[in-house]
Amino acid sequence: MQYIKRTHTCGELRASDAGKNVTLTGWVDFQRDLGGVIFIVVRDRYGKTQVVFNPQNNLQLHQQAASLRSEDVVSVSGKVNHRPDGMINPNMPTGEIDITAEGLTIITKSDVPPFAVTDDVNASEELRLQYRYLDLRRPALQKNFIIRHQMYQITRKYYDELKFIEVETPILMKSTPEGARDYLVPSRVHHGKFYALPQSPQTYKQLLMVAGMDRYFQIVKCFRDEDLRADRQPEFTQIDVEMSFVDEEDIYQVTEGLMKRFFKEIKGIEIQTPFPRLTYKDAIETYGSDKPDLRFDLKFVTLNDLVQDSGFKVFADVVKKGGVVAGFVVPQCASYSRSQLDNLTDFAKKMGAGGLVWIKITAESVESPIEKFIGKEVLLSIKNKMKANTGDLILLISDSWIKTYTILGNLRLEIGKRLNFLDDSKNSLLWVTDFPMFECDENEKRYVAVHHPFTSPKLEDLPLLDSDPSKARARAYDLVLNGNEIAGGSIRIHDRSLQSKVFGLLGINEVQAKKKFGFLLEAFRYGAPPHGGIAFGFDRICMLLTGEKSIRDVIAFPKTTSAMSLMDDSPSEVDEAQLKELHIKIG
Amino acid sequence: MQYIKRTHTCGELRASDAGKNVTLTGWVDFQRDLGGVIFIVVRDRYGKTQVVFNPQNNLQLHQQAASLRSEDVVSVSGKVNHRPDGMINPNMPTGEIDITAEGLTIITKSDVPPFAVTDDVNASEELRLQYRYLDLRRPALQKNFIIRHQMYQITRKYYDELKFIEVETPILMKSTPEGARDYLVPSRVHHGKFYALPQSPQTYKQLLMVAGMDRYFQIVKCFRDEDLRADRQPEFTQIDVEMSFVDEEDIYQVTEGLMKRFFKEIKGIEIQTPFPRLTYKDAIETYGSDKPDLRFDLKFVTLNDLVQDSGFKVFADVVKKGGVVAGFVVPQCASYSRSQLDNLTDFAKKMGAGGLVWIKITAESVESPIEKFIGKEVLLSIKNKMKANTGDLILLISDSWIKTYTILGNLRLEIGKRLNFLDDSKNSLLWVTDFPMFECDENEKRYVAVHHPFTSPKLEDLPLLDSDPSKARARAYDLVLNGNEIAGGSIRIHDRSLQSKVFGLLGINEVQAKKKFGFLLEAFRYGAPPHGGIAFGFDRICMLLTGEKSIRDVIAFPKTTSAMSLMDDSPSEVDEAQLKELHIKIG
Repeated sequence: MQYIKRTHTCGELRASDAGKNVTLTGWVDFQRDLGGVIFIVVRDRYGKTQVVFNPQNNLQLHQQAASLRSEDVVSVSGKVNHRPDGMINPNMPTGEIDITAEGLTIITKSDVPPFAVTDDVNASEELRLQYRYLDLRRPALQKNFIIRHQMYQITRKYYDELKFIEVETPILMKSTPEGARDYLVPSRVHHGKFYALPQSPQTYKQLLMVAGMDRYFQIVKCFRDEDLRADRQPEFTQIDVEMSFVDEEDIYQVTEGLMKRFFKEIKGIEIQTPFPRLTYKDAIETYGSDKPDLRFDLKFVTLNDLVQDSGFKVFADVVKKGGVVAGFVVPQCASYSRSQLDNLTDFAKKMGAGGLVWIKITAESVESPIEKFIGKEVLLSIKNKMKANTGDLILLISDSWIKTYTILGNLRLEIGKRLNFLDDSKNSLLWVTDFPMFECDENEKRYVAVHHPFTSPKLEDLPLLDSDPSKARARAYDLVLNGNEIAGGSIRIHDRSLQSKVFGLLGINEVQAKKKFGFLLEAFRYGAPPHGGIAFGFDRICMLLTGEKSIRDVIAFPKTTSAMSLMDDSPSEVDEAQLKELHIKIG
Repeated sequence: MQYIKRTHTCGELRASDAGKNVTLTGWVDFQRDLGGVIFIVVRDRYGKTQVVFNPQNNLQLHQQAASLRSEDVVSVSGKVNHRPDGMINPNMPTGEIDITAEGLTIITKSDVPPFAVTDDVNASEELRLQYRYLDLRRPALQKNFIIRHQMYQITRKYYDELKFIEVETPILMKSTPEGARDYLVPSRVHHGKFYALPQSPQTYKQLLMVAGMDRYFQIVKCFRDEDLRADRQPEFTQIDVEMSFVDEEDIYQVTEGLMKRFFKEIKGIEIQTPFPRLTYKDAIETYGSDKPDLRFDLKFVTLNDLVQDSGFKVFADVVKKGGVVAGFVVPQCASYSRSQLDNLTDFAKKMGAGGLVWIKITAESVESPIEKFIGKEVLLSIKNKMKANTGDLILLISDSWIKTYTILGNLRLEIGKRLNFLDDSKNSLLWVTDFPMFECDENEKRYVAVHHPFTSPKLEDLPLLDSDPSKARARAYDLVLNGNEIAGGSIRIHDRSLQSKVFGLLGINEVQAKKKFGFLLEAFRYGAPPHGGIAFGFDRICMLLTGEKSIRDVIAFPKTTSAMSLMDDSPSEVDEAQLKELHIKIG
């Protein structure tokens, strides 16, 4: 099909172009026949432009235009005109002009699409994923991918300026399952052997530090074969960073600089650095989360000292068993009705609480169902300690350390939502630091690494590895944006014997360690520099910066929660011959 | 290990820094004890600096320095001094200064490395790949990866400026083997089904054009499970580009701009655009190759008209059977001895020739073993037609069209090497165009696509699809640098019925086409724009720009020709439990 090439894009023409002869190419956004004169709007990635076909100018052209339908691909030529005063569309960058058509080529006819290509699309996500190429034509999604494109460029420019080297690490690597499940790739050449797709380039980036690369970054695909939650994908993108001869402060500084650029260049917002920091312990005890949303306050107060000797046996017992009684003040909610309070209690119970204690601060006094056990005196002390004011509501939970704070954390977020404290115009960034090295895997009755097995303990906690590993803190940190973990990293172990010791604590014996990570331990023999790094969840940051609610809206060809591509129906069956060559059978 | 952080890198200090107190961190490049005073050179990615330990300054420090060995990691502090006149090293950017040590921390001791970390390394490639992290410490390799890093940034900046959008396409995709073998990934969730790793993002980038992305690029990993030749890797990197509403000229122009930048910014060379173009037919008939090396001339001359009626039956028969008699002039080689000529004949025979005819142009006359059959007259006509001069040697081959030219092409390259015509300072870039659509697969007795099944035929050759598909030319083009194909692409089919027809000619019946490429044919229903693109072999371009002979020298963690990683010994065996979860058995 021969056609005239465009002179301009569909987003480009302005009043100052009036009088020019131009050609546009693109999709018919819509066609409207206004009793004789036909208007079409032509759309491409850059915008939309209106074209007018007047039968008095050219009858044949007008008849052609009458046959146009949405999503036909056209090349249309004509003259740029000022629109008459009443017809100017201030909502459209090209709204001051239209084009009087003088030539038209219908390059490709479209069938009627399964849904209209508009931002107020009224189709199920399933249908939109099946016809992803149509969904991606919507201006809202095109905008997301332009922002994603900008994020790539900002990231690389930033690290390039700081003398980081971009290095590609292998996708076909060694299977070293630790944490999540690997995706495996059977080898044709080596019978019965397999590659794995990287869950992260962790070992490679550490080897690059051993190799003296000093500062490395990469925007890289990673893979986890997990049962997917709504905001996870089997393949996802991370910004991967590693630096030599650094400590935490260097990582924080470089990372904060990147976030500053993202906010400045994508959203035009100046964010303040350095970001606030909270230790893991403080984050849990104050906000009940290792990724607290600090766009609103509602801090917790721990009341063990006040309640341990009070007459209320429930609280006293919890404290005696090493548990915690804590709570927070909900401002100006003393007026909550019985059913509102019951509803909150049900919410807390769903989160695993035994119950929820409330105290209303009234003009005269305090009011609580536990008054008869604990006495007004203690309630007033609690009110004072928590700095509650008249009209406020206090919510208290008593349970083990982690349960009390976690349940309060969920309650806090729920209250935040109900009271509209989650202000989308605010951006709260903070570091959470000093994570524990290990947590207990209840199923396997062993320690697992909270961050990963290559994370260094804090120097002052080294003796704890022998005496009480569960108390040892890691040189690990997470970056949190509005309650989302958007990056995480650590200072790594660079000492062979310390690495072996940590493997041992993780239940990886020497034979396994050698088989899985022998190459890394071997590398540590030959002069490993101190090093550390961080990895950012690129998809999630992009989702947050575009204001989307689903990462699928910022991934060109996403998979469903059952790891399928609805567009091309993968994964799919393959030929028997292919499997035979790979020496595998379906079992 | 506590240590003092660096104030400077090892490549940074100059005479103007004399007097400063500095700290460097890095690796001990070497240590030399000059009867009392100890010199060490500290190395990092940025360079090398000499440090002096004088026992008269600090005896304890001097003793510590005596214990240093190559590849130990150190932090060393001291004062920057001008070197005495005779000690200045002009070959070292920091050669005007050294540092008088005042403090030293040995951060990590190194075992004796399996080979010395120097550019004149004397170790097998196998050993170097096993200890890749040590090999990568060599300044020559570090330089390669800095150039590779620059290439990434140049590429993205260039396309970004031209309003291309970078989009990531999936790594876990549908298996559609066509051409090379797919790497497969078993699905855990979907019993008996598989993903494939992309051989290229071809279908995705075309879908992005259907999605209205208009201009797309990506630097992306691709995968082919092929038996590897020396310059291939199972995973490799390509610059992938696709554009809508374009023809060949647009692709050429955008591509030439990128190459111009590469040469300018990496090598400081201004290359001329537009690049010369040769049709596939002309490339074969003139240089015997679809990727001719034009750094030297030696063009072929076809002699069918001169020899078809001559008395020499061998030539006459070849012409009668539709074959070709052709050859080229080797300047000033008429003095070749019998054994030199025999050697060339053997070379030609190894390439599949029945024989090699030579003609020496002497001062008096011509001299050739075929003179007695063909007569001096014809020899002189050949000499004239080929514009041979006194002292030249003419080499002739007679065989089928493709064999004659291919053998001559190999001979031409061999002669070029022997006569030192391959000038590494020259850069010859050209387009080869108008490839055939199809070639015959001798084994399977069917057409296969020369480029790929999505390539558009030339419009004027459309009728040939019905009458004689083997004669149809494609809108396909390759970019060639010094005899290496460095990029290839085509204008694509965007019409559903033409695509179905081409699938049919390739022996893909409707059921198969629907199963494999149904999503693409379906997409073409809804307004596919005309589009085309190109893909660059990133590793190979990097190899050529760094002047390396092996792509393994520009890939951080390459695999061997048997697709193994010697460093971590992958592919490797995996747990039975992993296979069970994936529903596969080794067979």
